[in-house]
Amino acid sequence: MIRVLLIHDTMLIRSALAALLGGEQDLDVLATAWPHSRGPAADWQAQVCVVDGDGEWSGLPGTAAERMVILTEAGRPGLLRRASQADVRGFVSKDSAPERMIAAIRRVATGERYIDEALAWDFLRAADMPLTSRELAVLAAAAEGAPVAEIAADLHLAGGTVRNYLAAVIRKTGARNRVDAIRIADSAGWL
Amino acid sequence: MIRVLLIHDTMLIRSALAALLGGEQDLDVLATAWPHSRGPAADWQAQVCVVDGDGEWSGLPGTAAERMVILTEAGRPGLLRRASQADVRGFVSKDSAPERMIAAIRRVATGERYIDEALAWDFLRAADMPLTSRELAVLAAAAEGAPVAEIAADLHLAGGTVRNYLAAVIRKTGARNRVDAIRIADSAGWL
Repeated sequence: MIRVLLIHDTMLIRSALAALLGGEQDLDVLATAWPHSRGPAADWQAQVCVVDGDGEWSGLPGTAAERMVILTEAGRPGLLRRASQADVRGFVSKDSAPERMIAAIRRVATGERYIDEALAWDFLRAADMPLTSRELAVLAAAAEGAPVAEIAADLHLAGGTVRNYLAAVIRKTGARNRVDAIRIADSAGWL
Repeated sequence: MIRVLLIHDTMLIRSALAALLGGEQDLDVLATAWPHSRGPAADWQAQVCVVDGDGEWSGLPGTAAERMVILTEAGRPGLLRRASQADVRGFVSKDSAPERMIAAIRRVATGERYIDEALAWDFLRAADMPLTSRELAVLAAAAEGAPVAEIAADLHLAGGTVRNYLAAVIRKTGARNRVDAIRIADSAGWL
């Protein structure tokens, strides 16, 4: 039996995914929202942890990245890059058949990697993500609605430097303006 | 038996929800992505149609709004308002237990309404949505990254009028600037 911890913030989706995995004889599933460092999920000693890529999957208490299977939509190369760098081993598209999620769980349980072929193109794009981490930090602050002066104060930068970073982001993303750059970066999963 | 058409763009979630509904003896479920006007979904003659509120639920071929159950996250009063005005009868929070989705299906099948109590607060807020349809149209165009001149041309307005609408939106939403107003309106489900 493979002990699987399924983490999804949304109860209905979590219950539905658990119903789907519950049909497999070799999987023993505990489903939960974000787990606490004490409680049933922490005591579960999961061999594989299936997490929603849209949620807070990094820094899960008691769950090593190399035992994670991340569920994600296509078109999120920034997410794939962050997760790969954290040594996440399993990646499944939310638009794939359930068999792939189940295959990924069995593979990651043996310590191997599983990358859904539906995400191959995004992995290629992830290697080419054009923004620096500082540019991303400035853009993320702008996306929260912070004005330039506040971004500058928060990141210990001059206002002109923040404007330069934003101009670079707009140029690199091919955006028409700041709002467009935020939209592009967000939909690519970089923010 | 209640014939249920389940529409969700994401295959994994769709399969999981279908697995969950499949456990009910009185439900006969066909799951599909966006249905075409011809094909199995159109021929299904569903009594109830369960749709993802994040997808394109309006204008489904062959599916009347009054037979729909919409699944939505909390905090989307604009979506609830649009759907209610279209005469959608069933509303279930994605963060509720599966029993509520099943109860909503059975209720809507009899022609009655079902509103998940978890969405009651959003329904109250929906009645108070502060933006006019013109302000929303301008804001939605800005959220796509269009500059003021382009928004003005598209909506047959003067540039100064577009700026006035955007200023009104920023004031009404309590936003700090245009980007902040877009973020607030988007997260409230108004866009």
